[in-house]
Amino acid sequence: MTVIYDRVALIGLGLIAGSMAHAIREGGLAREIVGYARSAETRDTAREIGLCDRIADSAAEAVEGADLIVLAVPVGAMGAVAADIAPHLKPGATVTDVGSVKQSVIDAVAPHIPPGVHFVPGHPLAGTEHSGPRAGFASLFRNRWWLLTPLPDSDPDAVARLSDLVRAMGAKTDTMEPAHHDLVLAVTSHAPHLIAYTMVGVADHLRRVTDEEVIQYSAAGFRDFTRIAASDPTMWRDVFLHNKEATLDILGRFTEELFVLQRAIRMGDGQQLFDYFTRTRAIRRGIIEAGQDTAAPDFGRVATGS
Amino acid sequence: MTVIYDRVALIGLGLIAGSMAHAIREGGLAREIVGYARSAETRDTAREIGLCDRIADSAAEAVEGADLIVLAVPVGAMGAVAADIAPHLKPGATVTDVGSVKQSVIDAVAPHIPPGVHFVPGHPLAGTEHSGPRAGFASLFRNRWWLLTPLPDSDPDAVARLSDLVRAMGAKTDTMEPAHHDLVLAVTSHAPHLIAYTMVGVADHLRRVTDEEVIQYSAAGFRDFTRIAASDPTMWRDVFLHNKEATLDILGRFTEELFVLQRAIRMGDGQQLFDYFTRTRAIRRGIIEAGQDTAAPDFGRVATGS
Repeated sequence: MTVIYDRVALIGLGLIAGSMAHAIREGGLAREIVGYARSAETRDTAREIGLCDRIADSAAEAVEGADLIVLAVPVGAMGAVAADIAPHLKPGATVTDVGSVKQSVIDAVAPHIPPGVHFVPGHPLAGTEHSGPRAGFASLFRNRWWLLTPLPDSDPDAVARLSDLVRAMGAKTDTMEPAHHDLVLAVTSHAPHLIAYTMVGVADHLRRVTDEEVIQYSAAGFRDFTRIAASDPTMWRDVFLHNKEATLDILGRFTEELFVLQRAIRMGDGQQLFDYFTRTRAIRRGIIEAGQDTAAPDFGRVATGS
Repeated sequence: MTVIYDRVALIGLGLIAGSMAHAIREGGLAREIVGYARSAETRDTAREIGLCDRIADSAAEAVEGADLIVLAVPVGAMGAVAADIAPHLKPGATVTDVGSVKQSVIDAVAPHIPPGVHFVPGHPLAGTEHSGPRAGFASLFRNRWWLLTPLPDSDPDAVARLSDLVRAMGAKTDTMEPAHHDLVLAVTSHAPHLIAYTMVGVADHLRRVTDEEVIQYSAAGFRDFTRIAASDPTMWRDVFLHNKEATLDILGRFTEELFVLQRAIRMGDGQQLFDYFTRTRAIRRGIIEAGQDTAAPDFGRVATGS
């Protein structure tokens, strides 16, 4: 239990910031956690559940004297928040963000950061389908990756200190080029989310299959799509708008590949389907071996269990 | 604990038949469970783990004197198995299957069923990404749907008795027209599976993103696709080939819809994306209320947990 930053300011009090508050408190990693959210209702909820040591009524007030400022708002709102807080940042402080897209956040935030303040962009690869100040929990980041995409002129000490905090919250860190991060995430997260949203939308539109039927008989495959497609709409709207090129690139490849498999179905080419499905199995094994999921039979999870 | 069938014969000893063996034994629902699988290795494994009371060396031997015969082989193998066992079926026996497609199984199996034997097609909407004789567990069907698609001339008593067995294994039953079943499943299972296979394949093909990166950073969305895409290749090859029309229909609608969302991303139409994502959230809530999943934050599941 080592204090890594004296005062941490969390701007935006959703799932990620809320989980950070819990994890920082549990680990004694800061002396004071100050929070701010734009919505008065969110601030009230945060006060009610004691999410932070103090909830400020403005972003400027929240960052005053803070050693670490975490921007945990939707990607599209980062620039405005940065402009808002910039005049109030303490010299020597570190600003980080938790946005799912890095290049556009850097473009929006970096110009506002005053000299003497360190900007170290980051992205925790962790989340659930729930959102809001009550959704957080201390173990969200445990054994998950938290990617940092430092700028060429980022202060190595500031990066190291942020890495210490991230690891102290249970996460693993790595650094990456912002543009490469955005491509990797387009593959592992952004395109899959859009695809899941789309499939759930298709089911909702079908006239010959009722919503009731879709809901009742969702166990085999579709259920996992609905879980993904229940994620926060504002956050995801911004992700797609701000990682446009990489997402569209991956979706284009996806559509090509889907057409190839559709054609195999139409032509009755069982061998091609079998070979394809055999290859995709190997990737799954890799993920389990990398500790990013368990081999427990999840499709069979019992609805009444936890 | 009431015996519902004196002797049950399971043909094919994968996840579903294995789980039935466990559930029937746990519930004391049959006096004897006989099993058969085409592969000698599978039969040896089944004997070694005591999956059934007896493992026969041919399908014909397995069904001899059986009151219920369960065809639990890939959809494309159902017809051949039915032809094989037909001469050995006991008068008054019931034959059912657990295939994920119903119309083509009926077309393949029904002509072989002799007069005096009842054919009641079925489909348990339960599964995991694991397969083989060791993958089964007694609670797989608990709180899951098991759809029956009786034929117009199916004996009501035979249907009722099979329903009793299914409910005694913990499942809920409903009956459905075979063609409608195939459309509903194309939406809730078959199309989602093909989409997940495709997305995992795209990730595997990308040169600029390494498999290592895909595997390490899979936590946010992609992981659930890999889970689906790890399902048994033979089973799924057959599902797509045998539910061709409905699957291609749904995939066609999916592609249309995906193009609409891609266009919204390209044009920067945030409102359209936000509205779409808000609607898909509602379906998720319906599934949780219907008891087909839990609200526990699953994306956040800890890799080292169970």
